[in-house]
Amino acid sequence: MIRASIVGGSGYTGGELLRLLLDHPQVEVAQVTSRSRLGEYVYQTHPNLRKRTQLQFCDPQTLQPCQVLFLALPHGQAQGEIEHYACLAERIIDLSADFRLRSAEAYQRWYGHPHAAPQWLERFVYGLPELHREELRTARYVSGVGCNATAANLALAPLVKAGLIEPDSPVIVEIKVGSSEGGAEGNPGSHHPERSHVVRTFAPFGHRHTAEVMQECGLTNVKLTMTSVELVRGALATAHVQVKSGVTNKDLWRAYRAFANENPFVRLVKEQRGIYRVPEPKILAGSNYADIGFELDESNGQLVSICAIDNLMKGAAGSAVQCLNLMYGMEETLGLEFPGLHPV
Amino acid sequence: MIRASIVGGSGYTGGELLRLLLDHPQVEVAQVTSRSRLGEYVYQTHPNLRKRTQLQFCDPQTLQPCQVLFLALPHGQAQGEIEHYACLAERIIDLSADFRLRSAEAYQRWYGHPHAAPQWLERFVYGLPELHREELRTARYVSGVGCNATAANLALAPLVKAGLIEPDSPVIVEIKVGSSEGGAEGNPGSHHPERSHVVRTFAPFGHRHTAEVMQECGLTNVKLTMTSVELVRGALATAHVQVKSGVTNKDLWRAYRAFANENPFVRLVKEQRGIYRVPEPKILAGSNYADIGFELDESNGQLVSICAIDNLMKGAAGSAVQCLNLMYGMEETLGLEFPGLHPV
Amino acid sequence: MIRASIVGGSGYTGGELLRLLLDHPQVEVAQVTSRSRLGEYVYQTHPNLRKRTQLQFCDPQTLQPCQVLFLALPHGQAQGEIEHYACLAERIIDLSADFRLRSAEAYQRWYGHPHAAPQWLERFVYGLPELHREELRTARYVSGVGCNATAANLALAPLVKAGLIEPDSPVIVEIKVGSSEGGAEGNPGSHHPERSHVVRTFAPFGHRHTAEVMQECGLTNVKLTMTSVELVRGALATAHVQVKSGVTNKDLWRAYRAFANENPFVRLVKEQRGIYRVPEPKILAGSNYADIGFELDESNGQLVSICAIDNLMKGAAGSAVQCLNLMYGMEETLGLEFPGLHPV
Amino acid sequence: MIRASIVGGSGYTGGELLRLLLDHPQVEVAQVTSRSRLGEYVYQTHPNLRKRTQLQFCDPQTLQPCQVLFLALPHGQAQGEIEHYACLAERIIDLSADFRLRSAEAYQRWYGHPHAAPQWLERFVYGLPELHREELRTARYVSGVGCNATAANLALAPLVKAGLIEPDSPVIVEIKVGSSEGGAEGNPGSHHPERSHVVRTFAPFGHRHTAEVMQECGLTNVKLTMTSVELVRGALATAHVQVKSGVTNKDLWRAYRAFANENPFVRLVKEQRGIYRVPEPKILAGSNYADIGFELDESNGQLVSICAIDNLMKGAAGSAVQCLNLMYGMEETLGLEFPGLHPV
Repeated sequence: MIRASIVGGSGYTGGELLRLLLDHPQVEVAQVTSRSRLGEYVYQTHPNLRKRTQLQFCDPQTLQPCQVLFLALPHGQAQGEIEHYACLAERIIDLSADFRLRSAEAYQRWYGHPHAAPQWLERFVYGLPELHREELRTARYVSGVGCNATAANLALAPLVKAGLIEPDSPVIVEIKVGSSEGGAEGNPGSHHPERSHVVRTFAPFGHRHTAEVMQECGLTNVKLTMTSVELVRGALATAHVQVKSGVTNKDLWRAYRAFANENPFVRLVKEQRGIYRVPEPKILAGSNYADIGFELDESNGQLVSICAIDNLMKGAAGSAVQCLNLMYGMEETLGLEFPGLHPV
Repeated sequence: MIRASIVGGSGYTGGELLRLLLDHPQVEVAQVTSRSRLGEYVYQTHPNLRKRTQLQFCDPQTLQPCQVLFLALPHGQAQGEIEHYACLAERIIDLSADFRLRSAEAYQRWYGHPHAAPQWLERFVYGLPELHREELRTARYVSGVGCNATAANLALAPLVKAGLIEPDSPVIVEIKVGSSEGGAEGNPGSHHPERSHVVRTFAPFGHRHTAEVMQECGLTNVKLTMTSVELVRGALATAHVQVKSGVTNKDLWRAYRAFANENPFVRLVKEQRGIYRVPEPKILAGSNYADIGFELDESNGQLVSICAIDNLMKGAAGSAVQCLNLMYGMEETLGLEFPGLHPV
Repeated sequence: MIRASIVGGSGYTGGELLRLLLDHPQVEVAQVTSRSRLGEYVYQTHPNLRKRTQLQFCDPQTLQPCQVLFLALPHGQAQGEIEHYACLAERIIDLSADFRLRSAEAYQRWYGHPHAAPQWLERFVYGLPELHREELRTARYVSGVGCNATAANLALAPLVKAGLIEPDSPVIVEIKVGSSEGGAEGNPGSHHPERSHVVRTFAPFGHRHTAEVMQECGLTNVKLTMTSVELVRGALATAHVQVKSGVTNKDLWRAYRAFANENPFVRLVKEQRGIYRVPEPKILAGSNYADIGFELDESNGQLVSICAIDNLMKGAAGSAVQCLNLMYGMEETLGLEFPGLHPV
Repeated sequence: MIRASIVGGSGYTGGELLRLLLDHPQVEVAQVTSRSRLGEYVYQTHPNLRKRTQLQFCDPQTLQPCQVLFLALPHGQAQGEIEHYACLAERIIDLSADFRLRSAEAYQRWYGHPHAAPQWLERFVYGLPELHREELRTARYVSGVGCNATAANLALAPLVKAGLIEPDSPVIVEIKVGSSEGGAEGNPGSHHPERSHVVRTFAPFGHRHTAEVMQECGLTNVKLTMTSVELVRGALATAHVQVKSGVTNKDLWRAYRAFANENPFVRLVKEQRGIYRVPEPKILAGSNYADIGFELDESNGQLVSICAIDNLMKGAAGSAVQCLNLMYGMEETLGLEFPGLHPV
């Protein structure tokens, strides 16, 4: 059994992580910290865990050494305390944005302030197994992934791996997201009468996750456009890509199939009939799958590549547990077997 | 033209009132106050009014005399300032809970503190035209109505008027409500990921609007059970009533038809087939209609009486404007003609 | 490994059952029949199962003998073919309404036609483990449960077991339900623009599941009132009950706690603060839990008892698998460990 | 008073038209036809109109001459009967797709079959007042508009009018749509449990409305990508455009402001703060406004232009009534004053 603790367990990502780790056959959850919920039962914050655990939130200052630490703190906090955490655990998986970028310059540019521990950036592996599986097997420090970045990266990865994108052509990724990606803290825009049923393009461009897509896909001309829709969990990325001259549907089938075959949590969804022809996020709630699909206009090489995920799973806690499995030589899918629901 | 001002115009009720008054052919909106939004355009708070008005929120202290004042302040505030407002306008319509009850004792019991201006309670007429039309024609001071109380009162009114309820039998009114009835200020429970798709029986009994139903229907053994559902606007009251022995379907048809015929905004909805057989709140969004219906089990005299309304219209601003129309001898339906949408 | 087959696997209940059985560590799914989807992969109908199984729907006529047969046919079909199925498998779990009632008279009264195999009615055990655990351990034939009946039965069971209900007093159970309980076939009222955001009291009384509540709770004066709300999965029963004179909050705590302690899938939800104070169906999607709670008005003995479930799980497939576990002497919770999601 | 009749009044567009015309101060609705609902009251199909009209659906064969005919038939039907209708009324407004394109070749290419009355195509004016106001004042025959085409056309019109788009650069318009645009007839994909909360990119390209955008904006390299979201009414177009080198934010402000000033139903929504910074469809339900906005990346000339509408209003019945007003020299906004609701 691997002894794991969670730092900052009262948010949505922390709660999802807790759900996964409590049911993971090879993990024992030692401690879960939360300053604001000190002493409360975790099920009072994460009501789905009632009758599943009697764990209580503890003070971060009482954190004991363990084998692996999951950091689920607000962005910007882990970077200042990373040395402290590294003394407590041999392995760290940080779900915040703090260690996702390899370059301190990129961090400064996208986050607007210098990184507090730039020397640590290169020690971390970007925690998306579909892109870094081998490195993850031996990694000590693993970053989380941006949920939107993950939807975009997995929509683009089959094309990038197969070298099918026309160089320097603009890549536009339209991402539709649910409300849980804003976190557990409310704000005026998340008040139900206001947030309900919006179709709100809140970030036409400039979203910070863009940096992760540029870094991981090696693309320079990429834009993420973010639109909130009525949904709690889920993200759908629709990527508009110009493929190289001569690329055919057959080439694309080959690239997408290969990507789905290599990755246990990637599924190719591309049906000619029925009502489940394209990737859709709603059936993925609670599941670690990323469903991908594509459509090519052969007349002009314009491609639409689609990826659906659950932002709290494949886009956060699910990928983190998948990384844990790889880091400890376990079956990659362990503890991540929930297939999602239908109908839902 | 009637010169009207709104005190406290930044909330949902204030916004709805503003929408109605701006389009009312016989009303001129003079001022709209808001301490927190001072100087801002009202359309920045009520975005549906963009390009409809250049009004700006003004300081309550700059309030000028006018013909009629609408008070849309948080509960508890108007009662302490009523003398002041009465100096500014000959007629007052107060949409808060402050002047709905006729008895200071009842107020103390249900609101938990003494009323600040008990001598004013009897000067106010309860602002539900379906119950007080004649008094409203000559009223100077009119209270608003509780939205849930209105759904319950209109579900019960046809029975009360016709004397069909078995005396002393318990009346249980299950009310399902949307999120707008909580007002424009957010709270942890209104955060979209939490509030979305709830079916949450937040008040099994003891809801303050019960007092208005007891008062207006003259019932002593009545219970309101409140359940939040996924909806922004709308309330549905399902009242479980024991009718007097011998009451038949025909008696009920007569009572309900009479009530619908006497009241321009009451519609009887009771179809044998099709998909619109019973009152439903969603098609009432923005409309002032109250749709009512019933079903009797003749074997035992158990009756279900149903009323659907838009809580911000018939349950608040709509009824207030209807009262205005009556107070000034105008057509009762003036400015309230929007029939609601379908589909929606 | 137990060899199980599903007859009629293309509906929502069949799909949920399939999801559970495919992940059940002690079950092997042999065949899944569907006349209308013959030869198609089951994941084309149940898209959450993509990459989880290569099973194809087969012809009911090719059904082979197995250890346990799950029947998930439309109501009315199994009763005519029960002898045939009994030849194929030693144990049968029928999820339709066909064998839920013990009395042919009651069946005729509530379903409007005579039962086709009345002699089989007494061979079946009603498949709700919370009420029939011991009988289920040795049962060969087990009926499914009505989803609404289950919400009502579990709201009332703690009271019935402890004998706290005032005899002959009317019990009114208001049930709010999601759209999945209508099944996978569309109808004019399930068209999204029509069904979306309804609060539609479609059955004030007379719902067939009432018969199951009368039978299982031994109550004669009970009424189910059904209201559709915006939700796909989930049912909430709010039961209005008159308790015996002298019953206190303490008595109720004792009764509800005992019931929750005796039953692994029953949780008592009754918090004084926070936003998760009462049972709510949305966090139960995909889970087999029934969350129960109550509120007593000690002044008059009026009680509100609440139960939330996922209609496709505790109200259908989940309870069926729980029965399977009991019938084969397995851990009652096996294959039913998914705790539900939050937020969702 | 203008005597108007509606042919095919039982669909969603017909119902919306009826709502508008019944409240229009200068219109008298003579007849509404429907083969399938013959003899039924229109309020049985359009429940929001209960107590507003006693009109009944009549047989198309009984259609009498009138001043203006609104055709709201399924696509493909009006073109075969246009001569017949032209004998009955001097002016015709056809809301189907039949007479939107000016070229028979384009019709054949996008609709897959030859047009039945190609000689009529040039007699029709495309019914979007924002693009054809002057022609509409004297038009006898006016086509409807595609709802998605309208969202796209109004997102692009300010740029096209000001000549700001880089010639031949690809224009990608991502459109998110509600379920009402599929019409009143259900299909497997519109069944509530399936349609609820989808984010479904059902048409990556090739949508027929593309032809209307090419024609009206004079663009050749334009792609519409359609995604269904959880919403009944509403469409949001997010257009990704490359502007000409040197175009600045100031140029864009000027172009958008001019367009909003010239058109009574166009509003520019572009705020620096608050929660209503960008166009959003939900507050437009029932309103004829088109809200437009934009965001420019000055570093590379990439522009996002946004337009929100109610698909049944500005995208169908609202624009049709606006055309009627222009054709008869009435105030353009007559009968279209409903501003939309907030919150909703």
